[in-house]
Amino acid sequence: MKIASIDSALYQVPLAVPLSDSTHGEIPSFELITVRIRDDQGLEGLGYTYTVGVAGLAIHVLIDRYLKPDLLGQDPGRIEHLWERMWWRLHYSGRGGTASFAISAIDIALWDLTGKRQGTPLWRLLGGSTPRVKVYAGGVDLHFSLDALKDQARRFLARGYGAIKMKVGRPRLSEDIARVRAIRELIGPDVPLMVDANQQWDRPTAQRMCRVFEQFNLVWIEEPLDAYDHEGHAALAVQFDTPIATGEMLTSAAEHGELIRHRAADYLMPDAPRVGGITPFLKIAAQAEHAGLMLGPHFAMELHVRLAAAYPTEPWVEHFDWLEPLFNERLEIKGGRMVVPTRPGLGLTLSEQSKAWTREIAEVGARP
Amino acid sequence: MKIASIDSALYQVPLAVPLSDSTHGEIPSFELITVRIRDDQGLEGLGYTYTVGVAGLAIHVLIDRYLKPDLLGQDPGRIEHLWERMWWRLHYSGRGGTASFAISAIDIALWDLTGKRQGTPLWRLLGGSTPRVKVYAGGVDLHFSLDALKDQARRFLARGYGAIKMKVGRPRLSEDIARVRAIRELIGPDVPLMVDANQQWDRPTAQRMCRVFEQFNLVWIEEPLDAYDHEGHAALAVQFDTPIATGEMLTSAAEHGELIRHRAADYLMPDAPRVGGITPFLKIAAQAEHAGLMLGPHFAMELHVRLAAAYPTEPWVEHFDWLEPLFNERLEIKGGRMVVPTRPGLGLTLSEQSKAWTREIAEVGARP
Repeated sequence: MKIASIDSALYQVPLAVPLSDSTHGEIPSFELITVRIRDDQGLEGLGYTYTVGVAGLAIHVLIDRYLKPDLLGQDPGRIEHLWERMWWRLHYSGRGGTASFAISAIDIALWDLTGKRQGTPLWRLLGGSTPRVKVYAGGVDLHFSLDALKDQARRFLARGYGAIKMKVGRPRLSEDIARVRAIRELIGPDVPLMVDANQQWDRPTAQRMCRVFEQFNLVWIEEPLDAYDHEGHAALAVQFDTPIATGEMLTSAAEHGELIRHRAADYLMPDAPRVGGITPFLKIAAQAEHAGLMLGPHFAMELHVRLAAAYPTEPWVEHFDWLEPLFNERLEIKGGRMVVPTRPGLGLTLSEQSKAWTREIAEVGARP
Repeated sequence: MKIASIDSALYQVPLAVPLSDSTHGEIPSFELITVRIRDDQGLEGLGYTYTVGVAGLAIHVLIDRYLKPDLLGQDPGRIEHLWERMWWRLHYSGRGGTASFAISAIDIALWDLTGKRQGTPLWRLLGGSTPRVKVYAGGVDLHFSLDALKDQARRFLARGYGAIKMKVGRPRLSEDIARVRAIRELIGPDVPLMVDANQQWDRPTAQRMCRVFEQFNLVWIEEPLDAYDHEGHAALAVQFDTPIATGEMLTSAAEHGELIRHRAADYLMPDAPRVGGITPFLKIAAQAEHAGLMLGPHFAMELHVRLAAAYPTEPWVEHFDWLEPLFNERLEIKGGRMVVPTRPGLGLTLSEQSKAWTREIAEVGARP
């Protein structure tokens, strides 16, 4: 078995409504970077990574220019070996960071290919047995009026989501409190509710806000502090009953290991397309399980729904529909849970619609 | 004062003799990525970063495509502000890593421009007062025969270097020991000698080798362990009289801060074109000074000779001539020390020769 071809493409996916949160400002579009790996028997694996609009072309260049030539002709089934090879090929430009995104897309394609070769869904391949996973609707709604926020919550519940996440981090703390109170009152005391501060607060502010939020029975408070302030997060996790969730910004298994050693989270939020793919995601999950942490993988539901199904304690997967138009497949929600698809491998195919968003690499790579 | 233009170029610089060390294998060429920033009064700053042959085009893309549009029209004198702006612009693709290289080239160009505007050499601008700094000749010679190694040492001394670094990490440890012994005997007991293992050893091997090397009166043993094994390096630094040097692979001030907190080095080896430029280099130096560490900046002598001149305890700067043909200027060695140039800013200009090594960006960016 040999890798016969590797094709990478860059997409810029416009958002119907620009997103905003307290760290990234306005996000008018996402970048998606896909990798298609074909073996010498004609089987194909599809992997992807994404950005919130920055660095996508650099990720494509790392894949196409620096990783691909080193992988052609290799056995696609030796994933751990190929992962190490990619990691050391790019290590001089730093461990993690942009390099991890490039490695992710390839690693995910290799896992998809392996699942297809074996005719087994990815989550079964990984030993998973949970056919439905917990899901919540992710609101990116910091700039919404209170009325719009309430409308969104009603819409989420009507569409069958059993849980909701909302953003906090408004300039006035009193607004955050009023908004969380309003949503809690609207949905009642028992519907799971998360809040996400996107690293907005300093330590004293986070301390105060976590204290106030204790009354709202939240599933978690996400990124109350800078994503790398492990000591600060650990102090909050120890003090308050409300669980602390963090980890989405980290870009390697080593960084997650450091976070876990600090016990900086109750819910760990690894993101497979950011940490280097499924291979390091599984190692992160193993460390998290050993440390007794719960899991709430960040973004990329198409992929994480499969990985969540193989984690021993039930993770929460977040539902965002932004990348959906890129793929032909849709995820089904039943009884407030997401149904884990049974197609072999990752089982995603690119939609007709996606073609409209392809970026011409030659053009964007050219000198101005 | 406004930034009127930013031009980035990618060079592939062939090496007359391919290098090799125990981590990177064979290195046939370097990549150099330059940034020229012109202000609205026609003054120009030149900055650069480099790789050992991988990821250069991705770094160029980050600069040209994602950072440049956000910097045009800004005041080039507000370096701290612009640095933060670049860091947060790229943060979603990871803190440090490839992003740090891109930020480095721009940050260095901004400092050069600032020095030129004030008519002051960079090291004076930074408060430096040492007109000559300690220098050693860096041998990348793991694959050399013992005879070739000895010839190189004789050549280094004849050319006026007062200190020599050699590679270790051969498959047989006995070879390493014999080679270091031979060079120590050749140059005598007092000429400063360093060895560099380039992360080659595991902990038990490093433990044994550091023990054996105690007899050779080495200035330092460099990277005996994985670059991120701070606990391992700290244990060696505590146990042995021979100083431990590490830090060259790290790509941010935060990563260096972590290394320093672990006391994983006696000599810290930050690399300004890898950590995000002069701005974070100065913060790393401040942390190192506070922790009582010595400094041995990695590579990039054209830049580090200026930064070393401003550090309170005398750093060792390593002399490699690989990038020299790119610039018109040459560094002078007098009495075993490197003379710190007095031209304003960084004071480098690209040579006629460099043009031959420019890579056509449009071509390399195109799809295959």
